[in-house]
Parts: sequence; C-alpha cells; structure tokens
Amino acid sequence: MRHTISVLVANKFGVLARVAGLFSGRGYNIESLCVAPTLDATVSQMTIVTVGDDRIIEQVTKQLNKLIDVIKVSDVTEKDCIDREMVLVRVAAEREKRDEVLRVAEIFKARVVDVGPKTLTLEVTGAEDKIDAVLRILRPLGIRELVRTGKVAMTRAEPRVKE
Amino acid sequence: MRHTISVLVANKFGVLARVAGLFSGRGYNIESLCVAPTLDATVSQMTIVTVGDDRIIEQVTKQLNKLIDVIKVSDVTEKDCIDREMVLVRVAAEREKRDEVLRVAEIFKARVVDVGPKTLTLEVTGAEDKIDAVLRILRPLGIRELVRTGKVAMTRAEPRVKE
Repeated sequence: MRHTISVLVANKFGVLARVAGLFSGRGYNIESLCVAPTLDATVSQMTIVTVGDDRIIEQVTKQLNKLIDVIKVSDVTEKDCIDREMVLVRVAAEREKRDEVLRVAEIFKARVVDVGPKTLTLEVTGAEDKIDAVLRILRPLGIRELVRTGKVAMTRAEPRVKE
Repeated sequence: MRHTISVLVANKFGVLARVAGLFSGRGYNIESLCVAPTLDATVSQMTIVTVGDDRIIEQVTKQLNKLIDVIKVSDVTEKDCIDREMVLVRVAAEREKRDEVLRVAEIFKARVVDVGPKTLTLEVTGAEDKIDAVLRILRPLGIRELVRTGKVAMTRAEPRVKE
C-alpha cells in the first residue's frame, strides 16, 4: 500500500541521508520526498511517500523513531489530511494552441508563471488526482518540461468543513 | 553561497540516500530537497538547495555526475529560473481575526484550503521571498502549523517575458 509519512527532524547534516538509507536498506523506494525548514530554524519537516507492505512500513517508521535527530514520525496515510503538491509544467502553446492551454489553466485554476513565444508554463497545485488529471489533459498538447514538488500533508486539526 | 541544484536520476531505491550522503559526507547541509517522478516513470527529478563554498559545491556536483543512476546535474543558481515553492500554513482566525487573515490571503493570492472554527489554512505559492513575506505577516496572528515543499526550479527555455 501507498503510505505518506510525516517526519520532524533536527536540521542537521546527515539526517536526510540516514532517513533515506533506512528505506533503501530495506529495498523500499521513496516515491516522493519533500524536506524544508519549519518556523523553528533548527527543525525541518519531511513528507515521504512510499509504497510497500504495511507491516514492513510500520517497522521502518519504528526504526525512524529510534534515529537520533528524528523528533516525531507520523504515518498520516489513514488520517484526514490536506495533501497537496505543486507542479510547474511547460506546454507547447503556439498560436492556435494557446487558447486551449489557457482554457485548461482556467478550469484547473492553474497560474501562468511564464510566457514564451511558443510555450506557456503553468503552476498547478492540488491533490495528486488533480495534478494527474491536468497532466493527462496537457500531454497531447505537448509537455516540454515538468517539475513536481512531491506531496506535502497536514492533518486537519478540526472537523472537516471545506477543502 | 546558496546553491540550487537540479538532478535527474533513475527512479531506483538507494539513489536518494547516495545523493544525500554525498552532501552530508562533506558536512554540507541540505536546506531543502524535493524529489518526485517525471513523466517518464523510470526517472525522478530532484531539486536541492544547499549553502556552502562555491568551489566545494562544484566538487560535489562533479561527484554527483559520477554516481550511477544520476542522469544529469545542473547547478541552476545563476540561471534565469522560475523558482517557486508551496507552503500550507494554518493560522489562528477566530471571529475578529478572520477578516485580517482573508485580507492577507487576498493580497498574496493565497488559497484557503481548509476552514475550522478557529483557524484558516492557506496555500501560498511563489518565490522564497514571497513565502517569507507572507509568513512574516501571518506570524503575529498566530501560526498553528506549517509545511513547506521546498523550492523547485525550472530554467526558462526562452527569453524572459513575464513571471
């Protein structure tokens, strides 16, 4: 099963290598990972997406907890989460195709972040399903370049009202 | 100096641990890192932000190039790039403060992605400067939770027209 694991770590060198090593040591691939500072500059937050047997992933998270410099580990897979990622995608948009790309952007509330004579670059945010849907629609138009952040997740602190 | 390094790698287990290990082996901290799949499922893209002596970073990128499973390394620090990140930030927004939070959201083109009785959660995207500015303004209102993706960068393929 696919798991999303949120890890709070001390912002020290070597922590990322050790965390990543725990997964690869078991032959587990990290599908996506984001790590960035929090408001407290001494602490960083990682969001890891990985696919594997539930029992083994549970073992890995237990081992993560034992690592020095790991402050907190939560498997947020089953939790009610806001999970979103961002993608920058450059699409072919020569004269006759430009309107079509802009229409897709509008439907998916994407932002145009760069305009070239033959391309438009969109920034799209949302849950993975949405990102995948946008890319599926843009693909036949000609995707020239693409970069995804990978997912970040935040548990909902309060009863779900709106996303 | 601060460097942004873009790395294309084979999507295999162990690659992230090896890349991160190259930095930590030199005592270099990775400030932020994003890794996620590309359109080609066998290839992933990493964006690494690190701070250090230019000459040593150059050595590290050369060593990265020598790693099996590393397809391409580009130091995009000096290049004309679209660089953006995404942050989810949950802010205290009790009755009397709600309008103020919504006003900040509007100014910074942030999206409200979750609403609770006492909080609002915003999604903000943009260059690091902008993210930092939003957080500076929201901080006195009470930031309850925060998660950043870290930066992704895409070089501009064509002469800069608009961002």
